[in-house]
Amino acid sequence: MKKSLGPKTLVLPTPVWLVGTYDSREKPNFMAAAWGGVVCSKPPAVGISIRKATYTYEAIVATKAYTISVMSESRVREADYAGIVSGRDTNKFEHARLTAVASQLVHAPFVSEAPLILECKLIHTLELGLHTQFIGEILDVKAEENVLGENGSPDAALVKAFSYDPGSRNYFTTGPLLAKAFSIGKELVENPPT
Amino acid sequence: MKKSLGPKTLVLPTPVWLVGTYDSREKPNFMAAAWGGVVCSKPPAVGISIRKATYTYEAIVATKAYTISVMSESRVREADYAGIVSGRDTNKFEHARLTAVASQLVHAPFVSEAPLILECKLIHTLELGLHTQFIGEILDVKAEENVLGENGSPDAALVKAFSYDPGSRNYFTTGPLLAKAFSIGKELVENPPT
Repeated sequence: MKKSLGPKTLVLPTPVWLVGTYDSREKPNFMAAAWGGVVCSKPPAVGISIRKATYTYEAIVATKAYTISVMSESRVREADYAGIVSGRDTNKFEHARLTAVASQLVHAPFVSEAPLILECKLIHTLELGLHTQFIGEILDVKAEENVLGENGSPDAALVKAFSYDPGSRNYFTTGPLLAKAFSIGKELVENPPT
Repeated sequence: MKKSLGPKTLVLPTPVWLVGTYDSREKPNFMAAAWGGVVCSKPPAVGISIRKATYTYEAIVATKAYTISVMSESRVREADYAGIVSGRDTNKFEHARLTAVASQLVHAPFVSEAPLILECKLIHTLELGLHTQFIGEILDVKAEENVLGENGSPDAALVKAFSYDPGSRNYFTTGPLLAKAFSIGKELVENPPT
C-alpha cells in the first residue's frame, strides 16, 4: 500500500548541472540546476528550469545562450557552492578556483574542470510558475578523452557524475553498471515469466 | 583539452521513468522514457519527451494525463522491455507480469510494483522536433513506506532507482551517498581554497 505524499517534486534521479553564463559586464557565472533533462533528439536539445530571481535567469534572457558542465564527484563541493551563493555578488569561478572557458559557439563560459560539457543556444522559453524552462539546442558536446568509452562517447562509469535526491536533499554517486539497455529486456520479449 | 563530439544528446544522468497511460480502449500501457526531468517547483511539474510515433503519444494527447513509475534496480528487465516493445501490439503489463493500478486523480495507470510514482495532469505540450515535450502538473506523489527516509520523503538510498547513460547505452545503479546538499559547499563560502 503506497502512502500519499502530496503534490511535490519528489522524483529520481535528478541531475546536478552547472549552468554557465556571462552577465552584462562579461563576468562568467555558473549555478547548479537539478531541474532539467534532455527534451529532444532532433534537434538535440536540453531543458533547464531556473527561478526568475536568479542571476542566471537575467543572463540567459540577455545572451540567449548557456552551457552545461557535468562535474565529477570529486567536485561536489564546488557544485554545491554554486547552489548556495549568487553570482550577483561574487565571482564564483574565482572563489571556487574553477576555470571559465569561453565557448566558441555560444556566448557563454563552461567549467574547464568538468569532464563533459554542452554548449546550448536558447530556442524556447516557457514560463511555468516559480520556474522558467529554458530549452537550449545542443550545438556541441565536448568531453575529456579520459572519460570516453570504447564507442567514443562519454561513459557514465568514467565521468562519475553525481545526482541530486530531492527527498533526502543529498547527492548520490553513480553506482556500478546494472545492465545493457535495449538488450536485457529482450529476455522478456522472448521468454515471458511463467 | 576537450574533444568535440558534435551536437548530440550526451549528458548525465538521465532517468528511466515508466510512463503509464490508457489507450482508447482503456488498455493500460507503459513505456520507458529517459528524456525527462522536473521543470517547475510551483506548480510542481515534470516534463517528459516522447516521439510522435509512440502509442503513448496518442494516449497522452487523448487523455491529457500520465503517471511516472520509478522502478528499483531489481526491475531493470521490465523497464528495458518497455522501451523495446510497443503497446500498440501488446499488453505490456500482462506480458511483463506487472500490475496496473488506476490512479484516482488522473485517467492513467501506474505500476504497482514501483516504489515511487507520480500522478500527472497534462498542462503544456511543446512540439520540439522528433520529440514532443508533455509537461504534467504533479497532483500527487505516492511511495512505499519502506523507501521513506527519516524526513518522510523517498530516499534515493532506499528507492534504488537506476539511470540511463546515453553514451554507453547502459543502465547504472544509484551509488552511495556522496554529500549533503546545500551544506558541503558552505565550506567553500567560509574557507575558500588558498
